[in-house]
Parts: sequence; structure tokens; C-alpha cells
Amino acid sequence: MLPAADNRYLTRTGRGTPMGALLRRFWVPALLSAELPTPDGPPLRVRLLGEDLVAFRTNDGRVALLAANCPHRGASLFFGRNEDNGIRCVYHGWQFDAAGACTDMPNEPAESNFRHEVRATAYPCVERAGVIWTYLGPAGTAAALPDLEWALLPPGHLVVSKRLQECNYLQAMEGGIDPSHLSFLHSKKEAPPQPLESGGIRFPPYMALDRHPRFETLETPYGVLIAARRRAGDDGYYWRISQFLQPWYTIFPADPGLPLGGHAWVPIDDEHCWTWSFSWQADRPLTAAELADMQSGLGIHAHVDPKTFRALANRDNDYRIDRADQRSGSYSGIRGIGEQDMATQESMGTTYDRSKEHLGVSDAAIIATRRQLLRLARALEQGVAPAAAGDGAAYRVRSAAVVLPRTTPWRAGAAAALIARTPQQTSATTSAGATA
Amino acid sequence: MLPAADNRYLTRTGRGTPMGALLRRFWVPALLSAELPTPDGPPLRVRLLGEDLVAFRTNDGRVALLAANCPHRGASLFFGRNEDNGIRCVYHGWQFDAAGACTDMPNEPAESNFRHEVRATAYPCVERAGVIWTYLGPAGTAAALPDLEWALLPPGHLVVSKRLQECNYLQAMEGGIDPSHLSFLHSKKEAPPQPLESGGIRFPPYMALDRHPRFETLETPYGVLIAARRRAGDDGYYWRISQFLQPWYTIFPADPGLPLGGHAWVPIDDEHCWTWSFSWQADRPLTAAELADMQSGLGIHAHVDPKTFRALANRDNDYRIDRADQRSGSYSGIRGIGEQDMATQESMGTTYDRSKEHLGVSDAAIIATRRQLLRLARALEQGVAPAAAGDGAAYRVRSAAVVLPRTTPWRAGAAAALIARTPQQTSATTSAGATA
Amino acid sequence: MLPAADNRYLTRTGRGTPMGALLRRFWVPALLSAELPTPDGPPLRVRLLGEDLVAFRTNDGRVALLAANCPHRGASLFFGRNEDNGIRCVYHGWQFDAAGACTDMPNEPAESNFRHEVRATAYPCVERAGVIWTYLGPAGTAAALPDLEWALLPPGHLVVSKRLQECNYLQAMEGGIDPSHLSFLHSKKEAPPQPLESGGIRFPPYMALDRHPRFETLETPYGVLIAARRRAGDDGYYWRISQFLQPWYTIFPADPGLPLGGHAWVPIDDEHCWTWSFSWQADRPLTAAELADMQSGLGIHAHVDPKTFRALANRDNDYRIDRADQRSGSYSGIRGIGEQDMATQESMGTTYDRSKEHLGVSDAAIIATRRQLLRLARALEQGVAPAAAGDGAAYRVRSAAVVLPRTTPWRAGAAAALIARTPQQTSATTSAGATA
Repeated sequence: MLPAADNRYLTRTGRGTPMGALLRRFWVPALLSAELPTPDGPPLRVRLLGEDLVAFRTNDGRVALLAANCPHRGASLFFGRNEDNGIRCVYHGWQFDAAGACTDMPNEPAESNFRHEVRATAYPCVERAGVIWTYLGPAGTAAALPDLEWALLPPGHLVVSKRLQECNYLQAMEGGIDPSHLSFLHSKKEAPPQPLESGGIRFPPYMALDRHPRFETLETPYGVLIAARRRAGDDGYYWRISQFLQPWYTIFPADPGLPLGGHAWVPIDDEHCWTWSFSWQADRPLTAAELADMQSGLGIHAHVDPKTFRALANRDNDYRIDRADQRSGSYSGIRGIGEQDMATQESMGTTYDRSKEHLGVSDAAIIATRRQLLRLARALEQGVAPAAAGDGAAYRVRSAAVVLPRTTPWRAGAAAALIARTPQQTSATTSAGATA
Repeated sequence: MLPAADNRYLTRTGRGTPMGALLRRFWVPALLSAELPTPDGPPLRVRLLGEDLVAFRTNDGRVALLAANCPHRGASLFFGRNEDNGIRCVYHGWQFDAAGACTDMPNEPAESNFRHEVRATAYPCVERAGVIWTYLGPAGTAAALPDLEWALLPPGHLVVSKRLQECNYLQAMEGGIDPSHLSFLHSKKEAPPQPLESGGIRFPPYMALDRHPRFETLETPYGVLIAARRRAGDDGYYWRISQFLQPWYTIFPADPGLPLGGHAWVPIDDEHCWTWSFSWQADRPLTAAELADMQSGLGIHAHVDPKTFRALANRDNDYRIDRADQRSGSYSGIRGIGEQDMATQESMGTTYDRSKEHLGVSDAAIIATRRQLLRLARALEQGVAPAAAGDGAAYRVRSAAVVLPRTTPWRAGAAAALIARTPQQTSATTSAGATA
Repeated sequence: MLPAADNRYLTRTGRGTPMGALLRRFWVPALLSAELPTPDGPPLRVRLLGEDLVAFRTNDGRVALLAANCPHRGASLFFGRNEDNGIRCVYHGWQFDAAGACTDMPNEPAESNFRHEVRATAYPCVERAGVIWTYLGPAGTAAALPDLEWALLPPGHLVVSKRLQECNYLQAMEGGIDPSHLSFLHSKKEAPPQPLESGGIRFPPYMALDRHPRFETLETPYGVLIAARRRAGDDGYYWRISQFLQPWYTIFPADPGLPLGGHAWVPIDDEHCWTWSFSWQADRPLTAAELADMQSGLGIHAHVDPKTFRALANRDNDYRIDRADQRSGSYSGIRGIGEQDMATQESMGTTYDRSKEHLGVSDAAIIATRRQLLRLARALEQGVAPAAAGDGAAYRVRSAAVVLPRTTPWRAGAAAALIARTPQQTSATTSAGATA
């Protein structure tokens, strides 16, 4: 249960809102690199945190991201001509470069210097791991790119996909933080319950054998550690430790040898978000079998319309729920982990009234994450910027699932397993991941 | 003409509104029994008086109706598992029985007793005459099921159908109260005008021969009697007496031997309502010819999409109006009595601004009904519950059309004809009517 | 840049707004005559300046335009019976003539004189040049039909078309006023730039050779003269003089021998407008080749759906932009001058926030027009009606493109060319133009 005022505070992300201000202090996963495949190609419409933007790849291969409306009279630069390292509005020919400078104003008299007074709103972009990232923060501020394990891998180690989710980002992200739903929403029906094996995701038998895990959460400078404890034989505990990383990332563990996974939950506006999904092997390229798993649509990578990134199973068709399968096969009757998440999260309405919730002890991670985001946003209102936004190295972590003796504290026992295994590379690159 | 404030008062039915409070003191026709055909079948989305609900039929055959959002974190129970006489949310496995009690909370620690603090909003349901009725009133209050003639008949005597109407319930219901439009909207074009014979509905020649009836209305404890007087030869009057029954029923008479008819106009929300249509023979089963009439789509039972109950002729296709037929055949050019009503009523906009009306003496019944509803809702605001809601036997009435000597007062002359002819049965049953 | 308050003032046109009051003092192009082809034909839905209306052609061939909702209880007269020089509501048979008088009220008692108290809102209509014009001004006021050159031509000289534009009328009209976008949006890509030849529109080489014209504007009692000066050899200037005519007309010049053109930009409501397009030859009928040009969809007459008048290339399909053509052929990659205008103007959003503009000297005509409209609307708020609305002869003007010696002032040098060449005919007629 969250007071209505806090609910509004956490879920409104437009320019001028406290949460919008906080999120704008971090780099934003904006586009797949593959969406802008070639220099001088067609511009793309982009909407992030309620702002309408236009992206294009210039002659020299860089990505530019500008406010959609031409500063002159407001025609959309989406219809513009991408040429000469800038975009030219087709209404009157005004041209803007990637930094927002007006580089040509051909309908004005030659002697005019009016163009030096005109700037387009432009946001810096970098590419890393097949993702185009942008920084929407105020002029004079900057953030470090987060050294997420998956973002620093060589090509071939990573699959990236994105899908439209038709609800508020926080509602979607809370599914990613929530370790308790795995044994239900993503499980099979049989008794005794069987671990789900779906699209490269596999849960060990501990999960189904012990559906009442004990949860512990621990705040870190960069997020929240979420540890779920289940019985593992008579003497051990199976610890499944996932993480929330500020301001919208989640990462989850995998059994030994299986790809790791994670998400980013990025507001399009307050009623829609992009759910980014990442699957990777830190130590070796993904195998053909692993890639096939990811393309099957059964795991976290949903089957989407390639133009809109909307899942083919969506709220218009009740996510293609199969009631016969729900009765005898899977728990939900819905195919695909991503689709299962969407069905439940979108069914709450675009922004659920959290004052009506009844949270249990299994919701500890969600409570901790909300509290941290509220604290960070309020601090920024007082002028204190979020520390993690400036500390890319803080993100050199991973999730882990380990069996430990019952006497070993999880934080100590899992410490080594929670360190990322990527090279000490911090500069932005353009290494492209494969796209599911 | 109705002041704008009264218009708002009468047409807003959400929880917390005075009219919403009044309507919630009566049993609500919610679903066709046939929409939940089997125990443990798929849940159904239901929306009534602005509330989003989920209905399901339990193992033991009863119907349950719960608020749609799971009390935990708000996922819709529509995607839930209908099993073990309860519905289980697929997000975390919480289960609720038909009374709203949380009967399982499998993701919480076994020793937790948190589940006893959690309840889903649940509304009682009964079945009668192939209709699932529910009571949305506040805890501690109750209503009697109305002993409507059609609702107490054995199977085979009754046809029930429903259709979506895309306007406020009052606007739709006022068409049902209005005896004056029959000679126009539902008539034929010929001169001298001919009685309409359409889908089992037939109007006697008095209707077309005297299109200027005198109207008299009489308030009853349970509604309004509406008497239309037309000349019948030199010495008689043809009295056509229909009724409004609180809070949303109308019933209308028929010529001797023909099926009686009636409606219920139930808010889905303030912009949509369910128009229920009932046709019955009290004394004998409906014949095959009568059933064929009702399935023809020409009478009050519209041709609808079987999933959405939206008429196939609807506002998107101008109700398939045929201007040639309007010129030379029917008065409206629209096929079907239900579709004719929809076309005119929906064309006013979802809620007409009644301060712009010009009511004549032919609108007496509408004026009386509005006045009664206003009075009842204001009384409830003062703590006085509507008496008829507690008096199911008050609904043991019918409509009638009789020819009386001019000297006989209609109330006396028609008294016997206005009494229902159903057995003295008052308990709720599950006898199912046929569905058009 | 326009203050937000002025922006709202200029763009809100509903009944009760100052700009709505101003626009209602002028005759409104409402429908193509061809949309009501025959007496007693089906009524048409019409929406103008936010008012929902119904038009029909009576028995005797006149056009009637009434408020859509029947004065009785609000059913739409669109479903009405067009008969006996009036429209009859199918709900209860009330009939209204073209002047709004209630001529029959058959459901009321014969002795009732209630019908004399009831009037439908009715607007006068006249036909001229294949256009049905109406006057929405307050009772007791009147306007003269504007003697626009194209509106006074004999049949065969004129092509009229209309298309839906999905933005505010002012945003669309500003494109029509704006002489500076011609060298860009409607141009070809080649270097040196070539004059566009498209759909009967041709621009002389001066336009492309000198893309930095000097603009001069001159307010007239009836509008704004907009003169664009370009170099024409060493000693001359090419003056291209277009006009804004109150309150929503634009006319533009053509090279000698080519058809002239113009537009009307009429609010449907504040988010949509009708863009009317006119092409004509004053001195002779249009040739088959000219008509073919206009039907090609390349000029100002867009290819539209014949029922909705929405362009086939529209915002849902990105106006069928062809990025390859944009790269190597046309400047915009969009086919058709009308579609090019729509793409840019609709892409601003339905009403652009003009406080974000950056206007240059090339926007002088837009600034002058806004200022004139603001002044006229404010004067009307003070009780001063717009003079041009009463002076049809003031509209006997045309646009012109002339080459003058550099020493000749354009106003003097072009004076004769700016006078309309139509006969001294002022009364309304029903001569029908061809429809593109």
C-alpha cells in the first residue's frame, strides 16, 4: 500500500516532475542500434519520458536525437531530410546538426544572422552493446554510462530486444523486481510443481519445491540486492539473488552455464514503457541453441511486430490466453515469459492505484525499491544528485544463484559471485549485439 | 426540459453518486446464465455501474462476482485460474472464494496469517429465468428479488436477450417508457398508416388510426403506470397501459394471444448500458413460430455479435439505414425495433443535455419517471431506502391493452388485466430461459 | 512567437469564443453542391466551427441546414425523413422546415399549439460556384457573399475540391499565407534547383534561382497583400503577389496562361478543418489537359476518399513518404502539393504552441495576418463588426506574378493585374463548378 500522493510522485515522469528529474540524471536506453542501420537513413520518431523526439544517423555514422518540432514553426523533423550531418526541415529548409545548432536557414535573407539565435533541443547519444543511449538531463549536468555487465561484452555474447508495454514503467519494473511471482506466473501446473523450462530460462527444482521463500533485501549505493532463500537439502539454502540497479534496471541469476538475463524499464510516457530484455554469456559467445531458445518466444524475448515492437499476443487478444492449457499445462495459459508479465501488469490499468494494495512480506523488494526511488527523487529536489548516475563502475555487478551452508550469511557467501566478469572497459563503444 | 444539475444527478451512476447509491439498492441483471455455461469455465469480464468486475462459475455451479483487481497488487482476476471453488490470481497464486475470502496465499510464509486480513470485494449472485442477478448494495443492506412475471416462468415460456447500447441508461430507458414514439419510429409509412407487424410485435389498428393519444400517468409504490387512450369506435377507448418498474424495468402490453414484452436498462457505465429484452407467454410455452419471430431480428431482440452483444447494425454503419425503404416502406428505414431505438437514442450523444429539450404533453410518462427517480434518490440521501427494493411481490404486475367503454375509468376497468399470472414463487431459482 | 493567450484566442472558434464570433460574421463554405445532388435526398451530417448540423435539399431544391439535435428530445435529424420541404424526426414525427419552424407535431394532441413555441436552429444557405455557403452569425446580422473571382465564373471555368485536414484551421491557413515554403516543401531536389511542375502548378525559374526573396506585406481593408521579390535578370524584379482575404481565404498567382488557384480554410472544430481548393481560368473554360492536371493528385487537389474527403495519403501512413524519392527526386518525398502541406502542418500537432516559434523576416505575412485577425476579433468584442463581411465587392481581386523594373514600386506596377476579371455579378446563383 502506497499513499496516493507517493504513487503519483513515483509514476509521473514528464519534464518538470520530481521523478522525471531523477530519471533524466541517468543515461536512457533509447533505441536499438539496428533501428538506425545506415548513415543518412530515414529519421525515426522517438518518445521518451513524455517527450516527442526525432532520431537520425548522420553521414559520419553518429546518432542524433532532437526535439521533434522544428524550432521555426513546429513542423516535425520526422519528415525532414537527413543530409550533410544534419536534419533539414522540409517546410522551409532549416537545417540542424546533431548538437542542435542551426546550420542553414535558406529561406531567410543571406545577410540575416537570425540563425545563430535559434537552437533545436538536442540530446547526446552514444552506442554500446547494440543500444543507443541518450542523456536527457539538464544542460551543465552529465552522467557516466553504467558499466552493466551485458553492455561491455563483445559481439555475439548478447541478445537485446525491446517490446512495448502498455502501462506505467514502475508497474512493469515491479514485476522485474518481484522474485515471488516466478513460482506462480512463470511456472507449470503439474503436481509436484515442475521447474519451468522455457525459452532458455530454467528454474532449479528448489524453486518449485519451496514456494514460500524467505526474502531479504539490502540497499546498495546503486540499487537493491534481493535475496530469496529456499531449502536445499537438509543443510543448505538455495539463495537466488537478483538486483535492482538505479534507476530502471533489473538483473536476474541463472543456473550454472545458462545465460544471465536482465531488463530495463524505460518510460515512453506515463502510460507506456519500453521493456528492454537482455540475455548474455559473459565468458563465451551464445550458442546456436541458446539463440534459438531466445527466438522461440517462450523466454523473456517476446514475439513482437517488427515495426511497432508491440507483442503479437497483447491486450487486444487477451494475450492469446489458452484456458485449456491453463487448466492442464502452464499456470497462466499464456505463452512466453514476457507475455505473461505483460498480461498481469497491463491488466492492472495503466497506473494502478497502489493505495488499494495489500503487500505481504514477499513484497519486501518492491517496498525497498520504492523507498529508494522516493528518497533519491526527494534528495534531488533538495539539490543532491544521485551518486550512482556519476559512477559507471558501480554497475559492475551481476546476479547469482548459489547453494550455501545454512550457517553461511548470503552476503558473504555470494560476494564473489555478485561481481561482473567483464573487462575493465568504460568508454562508450558501438559494438552491436544481436537482436532477438 | 430538465435543469442541468438534475440531468447530471439522474445520469451519474458510479459508486459515490446519489443515483448510483439508489440503483445499488436493487438487484441488478448482470449476465445471461448462458454466458457462464459450465462450472470451472473461463472467467468473464463484467462492468456494471462503472465498476470493473470478474464473474466465474465455481466447481459447485454457483456464480461468483468479484472486483476485477486482485487485492494484492491489482492484477486482473480475469486472467485467474478458476479452480477449487475460487479464483486464483496467476501473478502470485492468491485465491479468493465466491464470498471474497482469501483462501490461499501460497507465496507468503506458511506461518503468516496475513491472508485473514485480506478480502476481495465480492457481490452476491443468484440465477433466475436464465439471468444472473447481483446485489451491489452496501454491506448490511439487502433487497428482495423482484417477482417480475417473466422471471418466474418455467423454461420455454421466455426469451431473454441483451444488447450493448452506447448511451446513458436513462436515455435508453426513456425510449422504453415513451408510448408516443410507437406510432412513428416503429411504424410503417403507408397511408392510411398500417399497424407494424415485425418480429412478433403487432400493433392494433387503433394505434395508427389515432396517432394523437391522450396520456395519463399514475405513480405506484413500485413505479409508474402509463396509460395511452385512443379512440376505439364511437363508444370505446383503446387503453394501452405500460409500466415503469423501479429502478430500470419497463414492460409493455400485447394484443390478446401475443407474447408480452419488457426490458431492463442497466448502466455499464455512464456512457453505455445493457438493454435487456424479454418476451414471454405466461400461460404456455412459446411456439416455434413465436421463437422464429424473435430470432428474425425484426422485433425487440436485435441481431448482435455473440461475443460483444453489440448490434451488427450500429452507429459505425449508421444502423444500416436504407433510405429507399425509408421513403417507401418503413418510417425509419432501419430494420428491427431494437435497432430503431438505438439509432435515435444513441444519436443524441452519450448523455443528452436535457436542458435543451422541449417536452410536450406526450412526454408525461418521462416526466413522471424522472420525478420519481429524483425523489427516491434524494430520500436515500436522507437515509430512506426505496421501499420497492425490499418488496419483491410488488413486481407481480403486467401491462395490458384493453378496449373499455368510454365511461369506464381505465384504472378500474383494467385492474384485473394488470395483475401478473405467475405462480406464487418467490425464491431464487436457476431455471434457464432460452436465449434469442 | 505568439503569446499563449493570443494563440488560444486565435485558434478557438466554438460558439461563444471571440474568434468564433468573428468567423460567424462571414459566409461559410459549408458543402459541395454535389454532396446534396437531388431534392429530397438523404440528409448529410455537417460539422462547422464545432457545431453539429444536418443538411438536406428540400423538394423545391433549396438547401437547409439545421442543428442536428431535434428540439424535442435531441434525436439526430440525420436519421430524419426529408419530405414535404422539411425534415421529420423519426422518433416522434416532428417536422421542421428550412427556416427552422416546426411545421408538424403529430404526436401531440390536435388542439395543442405547443409547436409554435418550438424552433430548430436553422442557418441560411445559398449556392454559388458549386459551393453551398451558410451564414452562422447571430440573428439580426447579415453578411454579403464575397465576390471572389472564382465564385462568379460560369461553369467549366472552375474546379473545386475539399479535403479534411486534421489540425486547427489557422495552422493550415498559415501554410497558405506563407510564400516562403514554396521554394522548399513544394520544390524538387536537383541542383541547380528546378521549378516544380506538378498537377498544373508551375513555378518560374526565378523561384528556384533566388530562394531568399524579400517579403513585403500590406494590409488592405479586406485582408493582406503579400509580395515576394526575387531577382529577375540584372534590372528586374520578379514580384509574386498572393493575398489573404478575410477571414479564411488565400489566393495565389500563376504564370501567364496557367490556372489561378486559391483556398479556403474552414474550421470543422478546433482540431480539424476543411481545406477547400479552387483552380480556375477567368477568361476561358479549363482545358482537358488542365483538368487532367488537377485530377492527377500532384497539384493542390489531393486524392481523397470520396465519402470522408480524407486524403488517401494521411498521417496514418506517414503520407506515403518515399525516402528514396526524398533523397533524389522531390524535396519532401511526398506526392502532391496538398499532401505535402498536410504532412508538415498536421505534424505540428492539432494546435501548435506558437509561444515556441522562432519567426524570421520570411514570416512577415503570417505575422500581419495574425495581427489583423486579432484586431478584428477584438473590435467585434467592442461591438464593431468586420467591414469586409458586408462588402462583397471588396473581394473582386486576384493574385498576380509580374516582372517589373527594379525602380517600379510593386503596388503601382501590379495594380491592374490585381483586379479580378469576372463580370459584375453579385447575386447568389447555383452555377455548379466541376469537382476534382
